[in-house]
Amino acid sequence: MDQLNQQIDFLIEIDKLKNVERKTKIISGSRLENDAEHSWHLAMMAFILHKHANHEVDLFKVIKMLLVHDLVEIDAGDTFAYDLQGQADKLDRESKAAKRLFGLLPEEQGNELMTLWMEFEKKETPEACFAASLDRLQPLIHNHLNQGDTWKKYNITSGQVVNRNREISNGSEALWAYAEQLIKKSVDQGILSE
Amino acid sequence: MDQLNQQIDFLIEIDKLKNVERKTKIISGSRLENDAEHSWHLAMMAFILHKHANHEVDLFKVIKMLLVHDLVEIDAGDTFAYDLQGQADKLDRESKAAKRLFGLLPEEQGNELMTLWMEFEKKETPEACFAASLDRLQPLIHNHLNQGDTWKKYNITSGQVVNRNREISNGSEALWAYAEQLIKKSVDQGILSE
Repeated sequence: MDQLNQQIDFLIEIDKLKNVERKTKIISGSRLENDAEHSWHLAMMAFILHKHANHEVDLFKVIKMLLVHDLVEIDAGDTFAYDLQGQADKLDRESKAAKRLFGLLPEEQGNELMTLWMEFEKKETPEACFAASLDRLQPLIHNHLNQGDTWKKYNITSGQVVNRNREISNGSEALWAYAEQLIKKSVDQGILSE
Repeated sequence: MDQLNQQIDFLIEIDKLKNVERKTKIISGSRLENDAEHSWHLAMMAFILHKHANHEVDLFKVIKMLLVHDLVEIDAGDTFAYDLQGQADKLDRESKAAKRLFGLLPEEQGNELMTLWMEFEKKETPEACFAASLDRLQPLIHNHLNQGDTWKKYNITSGQVVNRNREISNGSEALWAYAEQLIKKSVDQGILSE
Protein backbone atom coordinates (compact mmCIF):
# COMPACT_ATOMS: atom_id res chain seq x y z
CA MET A 1 0.00 0.00 0.00
CA ASP A 2 2.98 2.29 0.62
CA GLN A 3 3.97 2.42 -3.02
CA LEU A 4 0.34 2.96 -4.04
CA ASN A 5 0.02 5.90 -1.64
CA GLN A 6 3.17 7.43 -3.06
CA GLN A 7 1.85 7.01 -6.61
CA ILE A 8 -1.52 8.49 -5.79
CA ASP A 9 0.12 11.46 -4.04
CA PHE A 10 1.94 12.12 -7.33
CA LEU A 11 -1.30 11.81 -9.31
CA ILE A 12 -2.94 14.29 -6.94
CA GLU A 13 -0.03 16.70 -7.28
CA ILE A 14 -0.14 16.70 -11.08
CA ASP A 15 -3.80 17.75 -11.03
CA LYS A 16 -2.22 21.22 -10.76
CA LEU A 17 -1.34 21.02 -14.47
CA LYS A 18 -5.01 21.86 -15.09
CA ASN A 19 -4.33 25.28 -13.58
CA VAL A 20 -1.28 26.15 -15.70
CA GLU A 21 -2.52 28.51 -18.39
CA ARG A 22 -0.91 28.74 -21.78
CA LYS A 23 -0.75 31.82 -24.01
CA THR A 24 -2.98 30.20 -26.62
CA LYS A 25 -6.76 30.05 -26.45
CA ILE A 26 -8.81 26.92 -27.13
CA ILE A 27 -10.22 26.91 -30.66
CA SER A 28 -13.62 28.34 -29.68
CA GLY A 29 -11.66 31.35 -28.38
CA SER A 30 -13.63 31.46 -25.12
CA ARG A 31 -10.65 31.08 -22.75
CA LEU A 32 -6.95 30.24 -22.53
CA GLU A 33 -5.96 26.62 -22.88
CA ASN A 34 -4.40 24.84 -19.92
CA ASP A 35 -1.46 22.45 -20.01
CA ALA A 36 -3.42 19.31 -19.09
CA GLU A 37 -5.95 19.54 -21.92
CA HIS A 38 -3.14 20.66 -24.26
CA SER A 39 -1.22 17.47 -23.38
CA TRP A 40 -4.30 15.36 -24.12
CA HIS A 41 -4.74 17.11 -27.47
CA LEU A 42 -1.10 16.49 -28.44
CA ALA A 43 -1.38 12.81 -27.47
CA MET A 44 -4.43 12.54 -29.76
CA MET A 45 -2.53 14.32 -32.54
CA ALA A 46 0.30 11.81 -32.23
CA PHE A 47 -2.20 8.95 -32.33
CA ILE A 48 -3.83 10.27 -35.53
CA LEU A 49 -0.82 11.80 -37.33
CA HIS A 50 2.13 9.52 -36.56
CA LYS A 51 2.26 8.13 -40.10
CA HIS A 52 3.31 11.62 -41.27
CA ALA A 53 6.52 11.56 -39.21
CA ASN A 54 9.75 11.68 -41.24
CA HIS A 55 10.91 8.42 -39.68
CA GLU A 56 8.88 5.56 -38.31
CA VAL A 57 8.28 6.34 -34.64
CA ASP A 58 7.47 4.29 -31.56
CA LEU A 59 4.01 5.78 -31.09
CA PHE A 60 3.64 4.54 -27.52
CA LYS A 61 6.80 6.39 -26.55
CA VAL A 62 5.68 9.56 -28.33
CA ILE A 63 2.37 9.48 -26.47
CA LYS A 64 4.00 8.90 -23.08
CA MET A 65 6.42 11.74 -23.82
CA LEU A 66 3.57 14.11 -24.68
CA LEU A 67 1.57 13.15 -21.59
CA VAL A 68 4.49 14.13 -19.34
CA HIS A 69 6.22 16.85 -21.39
CA ASP A 70 4.62 19.84 -19.63
CA LEU A 71 4.49 18.52 -16.06
CA VAL A 72 7.51 20.63 -15.14
CA GLU A 73 5.40 23.73 -15.78
CA ILE A 74 3.53 23.00 -12.53
CA ASP A 75 6.53 24.61 -10.82
CA ALA A 76 8.22 26.47 -13.67
CA GLY A 77 5.11 27.94 -15.33
CA ASP A 78 4.44 28.25 -19.05
CA THR A 79 7.27 30.08 -20.81
CA PHE A 80 5.94 32.02 -23.78
CA ALA A 81 7.44 30.86 -27.08
CA TYR A 82 8.46 34.40 -28.03
CA ASP A 83 9.76 35.46 -24.59
CA LEU A 84 13.52 35.32 -25.20
CA GLN A 85 14.44 36.22 -21.63
CA GLY A 86 12.14 33.52 -20.24
CA GLN A 87 13.58 31.00 -22.69
CA ALA A 88 17.11 31.70 -21.39
CA ASP A 89 16.67 30.21 -17.91
CA LYS A 90 13.80 27.87 -18.84
CA LEU A 91 15.86 24.68 -18.74
CA ASP A 92 17.25 25.52 -15.33
CA ARG A 93 13.82 26.23 -13.84
CA GLU A 94 12.30 23.16 -15.47
CA SER A 95 15.09 20.83 -14.38
CA LYS A 96 14.49 21.77 -10.76
CA ALA A 97 10.78 21.14 -11.26
CA ALA A 98 11.43 17.74 -12.87
CA LYS A 99 13.59 16.72 -9.93
CA ARG A 100 10.93 17.63 -7.39
CA LEU A 101 7.92 16.23 -9.26
CA PHE A 102 9.38 12.97 -10.56
CA GLY A 103 11.03 12.54 -7.16
CA LEU A 104 7.57 12.08 -5.65
CA LEU A 105 7.29 8.71 -7.41
CA PRO A 106 8.85 5.34 -6.55
CA GLU A 107 12.43 5.58 -7.83
CA GLU A 108 12.11 3.40 -10.91
CA GLN A 109 9.05 5.25 -12.18
CA GLY A 110 10.53 8.63 -11.35
CA ASN A 111 13.56 7.71 -13.45
CA GLU A 112 11.33 6.58 -16.32
CA LEU A 113 9.51 9.93 -16.40
CA MET A 114 12.76 11.87 -16.09
CA THR A 115 14.23 9.93 -19.03
CA LEU A 116 11.15 10.61 -21.17
CA TRP A 117 11.15 14.30 -20.33
CA MET A 118 14.88 14.68 -21.03
CA GLU A 119 14.53 12.87 -24.34
CA PHE A 120 11.72 15.27 -25.27
CA GLU A 121 13.79 18.30 -24.29
CA LYS A 122 16.87 17.20 -26.24
CA LYS A 123 14.96 16.68 -29.51
CA GLU A 124 17.47 14.18 -30.86
CA THR A 125 15.45 11.01 -31.43
CA PRO A 126 12.74 10.60 -34.11
CA GLU A 127 10.16 10.32 -31.30
CA ALA A 128 11.26 13.55 -29.62
CA CYS A 129 11.45 15.43 -32.94
CA PHE A 130 7.97 14.30 -33.90
CA ALA A 131 6.54 15.12 -30.45
CA ALA A 132 8.11 18.59 -30.67
CA SER A 133 6.56 19.10 -34.14
CA LEU A 134 3.11 18.52 -32.71
CA ASP A 135 3.81 20.84 -29.80
CA ARG A 136 4.58 23.58 -32.36
CA LEU A 137 1.81 22.79 -34.84
CA GLN A 138 -1.07 22.72 -32.37
CA PRO A 139 -0.95 26.38 -31.21
CA LEU A 140 -0.42 27.41 -34.84
CA ILE A 141 -3.71 25.73 -35.80
CA HIS A 142 -5.42 27.31 -32.79
CA ASN A 143 -4.19 30.77 -33.67
CA HIS A 144 -5.15 30.37 -37.31
CA LEU A 145 -8.71 29.51 -36.23
CA ASN A 146 -8.77 32.15 -33.47
CA GLN A 147 -8.25 35.09 -35.80
CA GLY A 148 -4.61 35.21 -34.70
CA ASP A 149 -5.43 35.91 -31.07
CA THR A 150 -1.94 35.38 -29.59
CA TRP A 151 -0.15 36.91 -32.61
CA LYS A 152 -2.14 40.13 -32.38
CA LYS A 153 -1.94 40.36 -28.60
CA TYR A 154 1.86 40.11 -28.59
CA ASN A 155 2.56 41.74 -32.00
CA ILE A 156 4.10 38.61 -33.48
CA THR A 157 5.06 38.77 -37.18
CA SER A 158 4.96 35.99 -39.76
CA GLY A 159 8.78 35.99 -39.76
CA GLN A 160 8.81 35.14 -36.07
CA VAL A 161 6.19 32.45 -36.59
CA VAL A 162 8.22 30.89 -39.40
CA ASN A 163 11.44 30.99 -37.34
CA ARG A 164 9.81 29.48 -34.30
CA ASN A 165 8.01 26.75 -36.19
CA ARG A 166 10.49 25.78 -38.87
CA GLU A 167 11.67 22.97 -36.62
CA ILE A 168 8.37 21.18 -37.32
CA SER A 169 10.18 19.91 -40.42
CA ASN A 170 12.67 18.00 -38.21
CA GLY A 171 9.81 15.78 -37.10
CA SER A 172 7.62 15.88 -40.17
CA GLU A 173 8.13 17.53 -43.56
CA ALA A 174 4.44 16.86 -44.31
CA LEU A 175 3.29 18.75 -41.22
CA TRP A 176 5.70 21.59 -41.94
CA ALA A 177 4.25 21.91 -45.46
CA TYR A 178 0.81 22.07 -43.86
CA ALA A 179 2.02 24.64 -41.33
CA GLU A 180 3.59 26.81 -44.02
CA GLN A 181 0.34 27.10 -45.93
CA LEU A 182 -1.50 27.91 -42.66
CA ILE A 183 0.96 30.75 -42.01
CA LYS A 184 0.53 32.01 -45.57
CA LYS A 185 -3.26 31.86 -45.31
CA SER A 186 -3.11 33.72 -41.99
CA VAL A 187 -1.10 36.52 -43.60
CA ASP A 188 -3.50 36.61 -46.57
CA GLN A 189 -6.44 36.88 -44.19
CA GLY A 190 -4.80 39.76 -42.35
CA ILE A 191 -4.71 37.98 -38.97
CA LEU A 192 -0.89 37.74 -38.97
CA SER A 193 1.29 40.69 -39.96
CA GLU A 194 4.12 40.21 -42.43
CA MET B 1 -2.60 16.02 -48.41
CA ASP B 2 -6.25 14.95 -48.56
CA GLN B 3 -5.92 12.41 -45.79
CA LEU B 4 -3.95 14.90 -43.70
CA ASN B 5 -6.68 17.53 -44.09
CA GLN B 6 -9.29 15.01 -43.01
CA GLN B 7 -7.22 14.06 -39.96
CA ILE B 8 -6.63 17.65 -38.96
CA ASP B 9 -10.33 18.45 -39.34
CA PHE B 10 -10.99 15.66 -36.83
CA LEU B 11 -8.32 17.02 -34.47
CA ILE B 12 -9.91 20.47 -34.70
CA GLU B 13 -13.37 19.04 -34.01
CA ILE B 14 -12.24 17.20 -30.86
CA ASP B 15 -10.95 20.45 -29.37
CA LYS B 16 -14.58 20.76 -28.26
CA LEU B 17 -13.92 18.13 -25.58
CA LYS B 18 -12.26 20.97 -23.64
CA ASN B 19 -15.69 22.57 -23.34
CA VAL B 20 -17.54 19.52 -22.01
CA GLU B 21 -17.89 20.05 -18.27
CA ARG B 22 -18.06 17.19 -15.81
CA LYS B 23 -19.90 17.19 -12.49
CA THR B 24 -16.64 16.92 -10.56
CA LYS B 25 -14.38 19.84 -9.73
CA ILE B 26 -10.61 19.83 -10.19
CA ILE B 27 -8.81 19.13 -6.92
CA SER B 28 -8.20 22.79 -6.06
CA GLY B 29 -12.00 23.17 -6.14
CA SER B 30 -11.84 26.35 -8.21
CA ARG B 31 -13.94 25.11 -11.17
CA LEU B 32 -15.50 22.04 -12.80
CA GLU B 33 -13.20 19.66 -14.61
CA ASN B 34 -13.56 19.26 -18.37
CA ASP B 35 -13.41 16.01 -20.31
CA ALA B 36 -10.13 16.72 -22.10
CA GLU B 37 -8.06 17.32 -18.96
CA HIS B 38 -9.90 14.43 -17.27
CA SER B 39 -8.82 12.14 -20.12
CA TRP B 40 -5.22 13.29 -19.72
CA HIS B 41 -5.37 12.63 -15.97
CA LEU B 42 -6.73 9.10 -16.50
CA ALA B 43 -4.01 8.34 -19.06
CA MET B 44 -1.41 9.41 -16.49
CA MET B 45 -3.13 7.26 -13.84
CA ALA B 46 -2.92 4.25 -16.17
CA PHE B 47 0.76 4.97 -16.81
CA ILE B 48 1.57 5.14 -13.09
CA LEU B 49 -0.85 2.54 -11.66
CA HIS B 50 -1.02 -0.26 -14.26
CA LYS B 51 0.94 -2.69 -12.10
CA HIS B 52 -2.01 -2.68 -9.68
CA ALA B 53 -4.40 -4.14 -12.27
CA ASN B 54 -5.81 -7.59 -11.45
CA HIS B 55 -4.42 -8.99 -14.68
CA GLU B 56 -1.42 -7.88 -16.68
CA VAL B 57 -2.69 -5.26 -19.13
CA ASP B 58 -1.50 -3.91 -22.47
CA LEU B 59 -0.76 -0.43 -21.14
CA PHE B 60 -0.58 1.16 -24.59
CA LYS B 61 -4.10 -0.03 -25.33
CA VAL B 62 -5.38 1.19 -21.95
CA ILE B 63 -3.92 4.63 -22.60
CA LYS B 64 -5.36 4.87 -26.12
CA MET B 65 -8.73 3.78 -24.76
CA LEU B 66 -8.65 6.45 -22.07
CA LEU B 67 -7.61 9.17 -24.53
CA VAL B 68 -10.68 8.47 -26.68
CA HIS B 69 -13.20 7.19 -24.11
CA ASP B 70 -15.05 10.48 -23.60
CA LEU B 71 -14.95 11.87 -27.17
CA VAL B 72 -18.58 10.86 -27.69
CA GLU B 73 -19.55 13.39 -25.01
CA ILE B 74 -18.80 16.17 -27.51
CA ASP B 75 -22.25 15.37 -28.93
CA ALA B 76 -23.87 13.39 -26.12
CA GLY B 77 -22.74 15.52 -23.17
CA ASP B 78 -21.54 14.28 -19.79
CA THR B 79 -24.10 11.96 -18.21
CA PHE B 80 -24.00 12.26 -14.42
CA ALA B 81 -23.06 8.98 -12.73
CA TYR B 82 -26.10 9.11 -10.45
CA ASP B 83 -28.63 10.27 -13.09
CA LEU B 84 -30.52 7.02 -13.68
CA GLN B 85 -32.73 8.48 -16.40
CA GLY B 86 -29.73 9.87 -18.28
CA GLN B 87 -27.94 6.53 -17.94
CA ALA B 88 -30.87 4.75 -19.62
CA ASP B 89 -30.43 6.26 -23.09
CA LYS B 90 -26.73 7.05 -22.71
CA LEU B 91 -25.52 4.24 -24.98
CA ASP B 92 -27.92 5.23 -27.74
CA ARG B 93 -26.88 8.91 -27.66
CA GLU B 94 -23.20 8.03 -27.45
CA SER B 95 -23.34 5.50 -30.28
CA LYS B 96 -24.70 8.17 -32.61
CA ALA B 97 -21.93 10.50 -31.50
CA ALA B 98 -19.27 7.84 -32.08
CA LYS B 99 -20.54 7.26 -35.61
CA ARG B 100 -20.40 10.95 -36.46
CA LEU B 101 -17.07 11.74 -34.82
CA PHE B 102 -15.05 8.68 -35.79
CA GLY B 103 -16.63 8.95 -39.24
CA LEU B 104 -14.68 12.18 -39.76
CA LEU B 105 -11.45 10.16 -39.94
CA PRO B 106 -10.02 8.07 -42.78
CA GLU B 107 -11.92 4.78 -42.59
CA GLU B 108 -9.22 2.59 -41.08
CA GLN B 109 -8.51 5.05 -38.28
CA GLY B 110 -12.19 5.66 -37.67
CA ASN B 111 -12.65 1.91 -37.23
CA GLU B 112 -9.71 1.73 -34.84
CA LEU B 113 -11.19 4.42 -32.59
CA MET B 114 -14.66 2.86 -32.77
CA THR B 115 -13.20 -0.51 -31.74
CA LEU B 116 -11.33 1.03 -28.81
CA TRP B 117 -14.41 2.93 -27.65
CA MET B 118 -16.67 -0.13 -27.89
CA GLU B 119 -14.16 -2.25 -26.00
CA PHE B 120 -14.10 0.39 -23.27
CA GLU B 121 -17.90 0.49 -23.10
CA LYS B 122 -18.33 -3.29 -22.90
CA LYS B 123 -15.91 -3.68 -19.97
CA GLU B 124 -15.07 -7.26 -20.79
CA THR B 125 -11.31 -7.27 -21.40
CA PRO B 126 -8.69 -6.71 -18.65
CA GLU B 127 -7.75 -3.43 -20.39
CA ALA B 128 -11.34 -2.14 -20.44
CA CYS B 129 -11.95 -3.21 -16.82
CA PHE B 130 -8.80 -1.46 -15.65
CA ALA B 131 -9.56 1.68 -17.66
CA ALA B 132 -13.07 1.74 -16.16
CA SER B 133 -11.60 1.40 -12.64
CA LEU B 134 -9.54 4.53 -13.15
CA ASP B 135 -12.55 6.39 -14.54
CA ARG B 136 -14.38 5.60 -11.29
CA LEU B 137 -11.48 6.15 -8.89
CA GLN B 138 -10.45 9.57 -10.17
CA PRO B 139 -13.63 11.53 -9.29
CA LEU B 140 -13.73 9.72 -5.95
CA ILE B 141 -10.27 11.07 -5.11
CA HIS B 142 -11.31 14.53 -6.29
CA ASN B 143 -14.44 14.53 -4.16
CA HIS B 144 -12.58 13.27 -1.12
CA LEU B 145 -10.14 16.19 -1.46
CA ASN B 146 -12.89 18.69 -2.37
CA GLN B 147 -14.82 18.30 0.88
CA GLY B 148 -17.33 16.10 -0.96
CA ASP B 149 -18.37 18.82 -3.36
CA THR B 150 -20.40 16.69 -5.82
CA TRP B 151 -21.78 14.42 -3.07
CA LYS B 152 -23.17 17.33 -1.08
CA LYS B 153 -24.49 19.19 -4.11
CA TYR B 154 -26.51 16.18 -5.30
CA ASN B 155 -27.24 14.57 -1.89
CA ILE B 156 -25.31 11.40 -2.67
CA THR B 157 -24.96 8.86 0.17
CA SER B 158 -22.07 6.52 0.91
CA GLY B 159 -24.30 3.58 -0.14
CA GLN B 160 -24.67 5.09 -3.59
CA VAL B 161 -20.94 5.77 -3.81
CA VAL B 162 -20.14 2.16 -2.85
CA ASN B 163 -22.67 0.77 -5.37
CA ARG B 164 -21.40 2.96 -8.16
CA ASN B 165 -17.73 2.30 -7.50
CA ARG B 166 -17.70 -1.36 -6.48
CA GLU B 167 -16.84 -2.24 -10.06
CA ILE B 168 -13.36 -0.77 -9.49
CA SER B 169 -12.59 -4.24 -8.08
CA ASN B 170 -13.16 -5.78 -11.55
CA GLY B 171 -10.12 -3.90 -12.78
CA SER B 172 -8.08 -3.73 -9.61
CA GLU B 173 -8.70 -5.17 -6.16
CA ALA B 174 -5.86 -3.01 -4.85
CA LEU B 175 -7.48 0.19 -6.11
CA TRP B 176 -10.87 -0.89 -4.75
CA ALA B 177 -9.30 -1.42 -1.31
CA TYR B 178 -7.86 2.08 -1.59
CA ALA B 179 -11.24 3.46 -2.70
CA GLU B 180 -13.06 1.76 0.16
CA GLN B 181 -10.87 3.41 2.77
CA LEU B 182 -11.33 6.78 1.01
CA ILE B 183 -15.11 6.36 1.23
CA LYS B 184 -14.85 5.39 4.89
CA LYS B 185 -12.61 8.37 5.64
CA SER B 186 -15.02 10.67 3.83
CA VAL B 187 -17.90 9.44 6.02
CA ASP B 188 -15.76 9.81 9.16
CA GLN B 189 -14.90 13.36 8.15
CA GLY B 190 -18.58 14.19 7.64
CA ILE B 191 -18.19 15.12 3.97
CA LEU B 192 -20.22 12.09 2.78
CA SER B 193 -23.49 11.12 4.47
CA GLU B 194 -24.07 7.48 5.46
